Amino acid sequence: MRALVKAGPGPGMVLRDVPRPVCGPTDVLIRVHHAGVCGTDLHIWEWDSWASSRLKPPVVVGHEFAGEIVELSREAASAELLAVGDLVTAEGHIVCGHCLQCRLGDAHLCQRTSIIGVDRDGAFADYIAMPASNVMKLDGIPTEIGAIMDPMGNAVHTVLEAQVPGSTVFVLGCGPIGCFAVGVARAAGASLVIASDYNPRRLELARSMGAHATLDPAHDDVLGRIRELTGGDGVDLVCEMSGHPDGHATAFAAARLGGRVNLLGTPSRTTVTDFARDVIFKGLTLYGVTGRKMYETWHQMRRFLRAGQLDPRPVITHRFPLECIADAIQVIKTGEAGKVILEVAA
Amino acid sequence: MRALVKAGPGPGMVLRDVPRPVCGPTDVLIRVHHAGVCGTDLHIWEWDSWASSRLKPPVVVGHEFAGEIVELSREAASAELLAVGDLVTAEGHIVCGHCLQCRLGDAHLCQRTSIIGVDRDGAFADYIAMPASNVMKLDGIPTEIGAIMDPMGNAVHTVLEAQVPGSTVFVLGCGPIGCFAVGVARAAGASLVIASDYNPRRLELARSMGAHATLDPAHDDVLGRIRELTGGDGVDLVCEMSGHPDGHATAFAAARLGGRVNLLGTPSRTTVTDFARDVIFKGLTLYGVTGRKMYETWHQMRRFLRAGQLDPRPVITHRFPLECIADAIQVIKTGEAGKVILEVAA
Amino acid sequence: MRALVKAGPGPGMVLRDVPRPVCGPTDVLIRVHHAGVCGTDLHIWEWDSWASSRLKPPVVVGHEFAGEIVELSREAASAELLAVGDLVTAEGHIVCGHCLQCRLGDAHLCQRTSIIGVDRDGAFADYIAMPASNVMKLDGIPTEIGAIMDPMGNAVHTVLEAQVPGSTVFVLGCGPIGCFAVGVARAAGASLVIASDYNPRRLELARSMGAHATLDPAHDDVLGRIRELTGGDGVDLVCEMSGHPDGHATAFAAARLGGRVNLLGTPSRTTVTDFARDVIFKGLTLYGVTGRKMYETWHQMRRFLRAGQLDPRPVITHRFPLECIADAIQVIKTGEAGKVILEVAA
Amino acid sequence: MRALVKAGPGPGMVLRDVPRPVCGPTDVLIRVHHAGVCGTDLHIWEWDSWASSRLKPPVVVGHEFAGEIVELSREAASAELLAVGDLVTAEGHIVCGHCLQCRLGDAHLCQRTSIIGVDRDGAFADYIAMPASNVMKLDGIPTEIGAIMDPMGNAVHTVLEAQVPGSTVFVLGCGPIGCFAVGVARAAGASLVIASDYNPRRLELARSMGAHATLDPAHDDVLGRIRELTGGDGVDLVCEMSGHPDGHATAFAAARLGGRVNLLGTPSRTTVTDFARDVIFKGLTLYGVTGRKMYETWHQMRRFLRAGQLDPRPVITHRFPLECIADAIQVIKTGEAGKVILEVAA
Repeated sequence: MRALVKAGPGPGMVLRDVPRPVCGPTDVLIRVHHAGVCGTDLHIWEWDSWASSRLKPPVVVGHEFAGEIVELSREAASAELLAVGDLVTAEGHIVCGHCLQCRLGDAHLCQRTSIIGVDRDGAFADYIAMPASNVMKLDGIPTEIGAIMDPMGNAVHTVLEAQVPGSTVFVLGCGPIGCFAVGVARAAGASLVIASDYNPRRLELARSMGAHATLDPAHDDVLGRIRELTGGDGVDLVCEMSGHPDGHATAFAAARLGGRVNLLGTPSRTTVTDFARDVIFKGLTLYGVTGRKMYETWHQMRRFLRAGQLDPRPVITHRFPLECIADAIQVIKTGEAGKVILEVAA
Repeated sequence: MRALVKAGPGPGMVLRDVPRPVCGPTDVLIRVHHAGVCGTDLHIWEWDSWASSRLKPPVVVGHEFAGEIVELSREAASAELLAVGDLVTAEGHIVCGHCLQCRLGDAHLCQRTSIIGVDRDGAFADYIAMPASNVMKLDGIPTEIGAIMDPMGNAVHTVLEAQVPGSTVFVLGCGPIGCFAVGVARAAGASLVIASDYNPRRLELARSMGAHATLDPAHDDVLGRIRELTGGDGVDLVCEMSGHPDGHATAFAAARLGGRVNLLGTPSRTTVTDFARDVIFKGLTLYGVTGRKMYETWHQMRRFLRAGQLDPRPVITHRFPLECIADAIQVIKTGEAGKVILEVAA
Repeated sequence: MRALVKAGPGPGMVLRDVPRPVCGPTDVLIRVHHAGVCGTDLHIWEWDSWASSRLKPPVVVGHEFAGEIVELSREAASAELLAVGDLVTAEGHIVCGHCLQCRLGDAHLCQRTSIIGVDRDGAFADYIAMPASNVMKLDGIPTEIGAIMDPMGNAVHTVLEAQVPGSTVFVLGCGPIGCFAVGVARAAGASLVIASDYNPRRLELARSMGAHATLDPAHDDVLGRIRELTGGDGVDLVCEMSGHPDGHATAFAAARLGGRVNLLGTPSRTTVTDFARDVIFKGLTLYGVTGRKMYETWHQMRRFLRAGQLDPRPVITHRFPLECIADAIQVIKTGEAGKVILEVAA
Repeated sequence: MRALVKAGPGPGMVLRDVPRPVCGPTDVLIRVHHAGVCGTDLHIWEWDSWASSRLKPPVVVGHEFAGEIVELSREAASAELLAVGDLVTAEGHIVCGHCLQCRLGDAHLCQRTSIIGVDRDGAFADYIAMPASNVMKLDGIPTEIGAIMDPMGNAVHTVLEAQVPGSTVFVLGCGPIGCFAVGVARAAGASLVIASDYNPRRLELARSMGAHATLDPAHDDVLGRIRELTGGDGVDLVCEMSGHPDGHATAFAAARLGGRVNLLGTPSRTTVTDFARDVIFKGLTLYGVTGRKMYETWHQMRRFLRAGQLDPRPVITHRFPLECIADAIQVIKTGEAGKVILEVAA
């Protein structure tokens, strides 16, 4: 089969013919229809310090995908919960089930996580084998959307880890996950959603996802405007999606006394923080978001999508065939893209 | 009546004769029996930048106290809930009841808080007038202990803002509030309580409050020992009580994946934090602790004290009469004191 | 001033001239614009066993209202949070602030609650005096809607005491509060809202408030349809608003394993319940709803109303002047009314 | 190997030689050391209506056990988390992992649960095969105690589904699980634990587990005494462990306004309940307890046991060899037994 492979140290990926993966004793085999290209894939392409310390090439890249079940292990078949022909997506974190975190229902923080497309072969390929327990049926959601439920799940996790109905939400950073977060906050009954980014194209996407107000730090007094829009209180919930080191100070300042800051964007360097003034005296709660809750996040997201409360399609701006990965990577690097999709199956 | 007054800008306090406070329309008047001396009082004594920017002298100092009701306003009397002769303590934050935080049950974060002994006359005096709604009956708790329920309440708030039964807790910093936190964690069913401080005298106090293990960063590999004591996982809950800028990095590193860090100690300067590594990838929750929940914290604390589950007396190391405030301040500055009490009434 | 008074034992109310209430030391005096007529007022009119055991006539009736502040006590004025001319509504439960429930933030369950229009003079009058702390500014919400925020608050409390975003909700009973609950569930991001009632007029109101599906037990297999609409699972949340003794069995059966049943409707007699089959083996949570959370519920409701997420106006079906109370009571008794409003001020 | 088998319809069990179970692809094989005899086993012995409608004989009985791993499947071995020689216990509910409840972290409510000793072969035998993911290492806890972690887990689940530190708890019914609940409430920091039963022997066990007060409804005014012991408020948490139909009314009446009633005991018939008076006007929360949270409950219990905070040994009153099952059943029927253990391995 075809697969995009990180073949060895250094930049780039190569399209190769590799053996179709074996469907293990608790697995299902999936024919990939669509796959999403993530910032992580960009790091892998560029072979930055994180990638070079984590990956052991050769490895098939890609962790966001949806497709069709073409084979089931005997165990998966006997459970009678999945069937050949089912359209599915999957959680890409393969977890141990035994560590403290797995035992406490926090499998997204498993001490022995193995991530597809990073620690083991991934989804930028014609086929992928996945443990049956990681697989979710799409139940009518198109595979193009199913392919981006992994990053959308990051947004769902970030937003719903708060009491959203009737709340005021500030989404700081409008990359694809930030834009999804805007849509999730609206779906979950937020009364006011404010989004900020330096990139006007991204603010436009945020508006199309339902932001009531968008702010550009280059032109707007972000904190002043937030105070104005919230009657001087600040917002109930800040979703820090920028990963920009300056984002934290803005996030803490934007939150109201007793508010909440959920942090998803991962800054590449340390931050100078005034914990006394910005966190302790304000009675803030900060929460670090990793992955998706397994599988509460997936369930809530599927409900939103199937009910039509959340429509992520405005964020999908580009589609490429598998062999045009270089173009996909390039468009992400320009900052002009929302979500970029690989169309794998004809 | 006698009162310790911050008379004007500059260090020190003076013992003066001042008029007995008037019992306002919703107040009760309390004869002070015991009062606690706090780090805040030290800042006020020394007239540091915080004190000089916040206080408007002359003001009677002191916010931790217990005593006896000697007069009730007509409104307080008609409610028939408090009576002359009741031994009581009181929450020293006078709140507005109308701001967003008050309306949401977070009155400890009231936007218009007025603190006794800081923003208005306080408790280092023979009498103090307090709104009846701020007053809690001691119901058998001695006034000496009642006088330190304010700082003990900080510890109760810090510890109980987590799921404690069966958990592992690391108390970082063993000043009086840290030592109280050790006792509260034990009372609340923690399975393992580890405490750290550079001061051996304070570690001794922590052990007397029930710490299973005490660590001195000058001699112990704190993080290594915590890993050892928790089977490699790290602790469920860190209570950061040191306020030392280095405390944060240790706190975040000591917490397990998915753990919680409740921050009470207020560092005097900013901290350099690696949010990606220490908070986001670890899925941590951070919580800034201000004051005491009004009045859930007081209720839980009174339960612990009356049931004998928590005995703070080992932490009380010094007692002085009102006129020896300079000695009280001095002993706190040496770092050799636990909690220091003023014996106000004969 | 004019006031509708329960003058003595027996049915009916009388319109009388009574003295304007005195604005007490912590009160504000409000000129009533609109008032809502409640099922409770019907019980008082009819002088049923509950009413005759609870009320001590003469008492001015009415507990749902909104109007304009015309006078402030010195204490209320000095807080500078309310002003003459402010349009406001108010929580009608006057609480003690000292009992266990008040201290724990559950003032809606105060052991010494005094309810306006029941235990003390109420709002079917030209003026009412209210403690300033019970008063909420309308901030642009019309007084007609402000007058029904008390019963709407019951619905907000019932629905939001659950995790609503993405959930499936069954509202059992479509009187005014049931219809409000439909709207609140939609505002809070429910994915599916099903409503049932025997009265087609009420089902029509439920649909106008956003119900995805409405069921009439006289013609529909309610449980069968719910299973169908939820893929066989049952719903996440049932709001029992009917108060019909048969409602409980249906409510428990409609909830999914691990679901939640919030009970607001108060049946007039006991219920036969199979706790083993319906509650324990299903892992259900049941919650009894009393009043409105003080004041979290009011805050959330105001957010929904001001943001336009919730519009209760379809439920208001009748308006009468104060003197036509008999007509108002009559139309409620027919079961054809949604919410009935008294227009008090010209 | 030897096994106690329900051979066919009708009362009793037989000790038979049956083939040693096969260690399936994700299983481990365990040599049983100790097993606990449960009320459920009594129902199976007596072949009551529940048993005859649920079991498909022949089936090996028994679901509470602990023992030693003697064989691992290749999959279980490759995970390197369990090893031959490990002393373990196991959750006896084998769940599907795919239904709504499993996906939401409520696997204890799995729609397709298969229970060992009921729906499939169980633990009253020399060996049992269990999915590796159901197995918990004892880490120093003796197998005799490990064998009763299943029912003790019911108690842990019942008690910890509430905020226990500083609370007042009433345990209604002092069978083995009720007695465990007393110990768990103490371990978790309850300030007051009251227990009731008609059987003086059981009240003695409850006292040995730490009950502050014990009540016998035949001689004590249970509700009056509870009011007295709680200053008139009622208790924060009731654990209904009796399963007696009268238990519910007492449970609801014993709870304070805003309190919580966790229901574990399963009455054999319906209950007449005054929901308006007892649940709705009181603002109660009721929670039906099924099984143990997978695996949060097990984790918390292991913490309590390993830290010495909970010692269930006083409740173990009888020990029998496997072949004396009739004696074990008999002693349970007398009501004189606490927990009854089968000593399976020499």
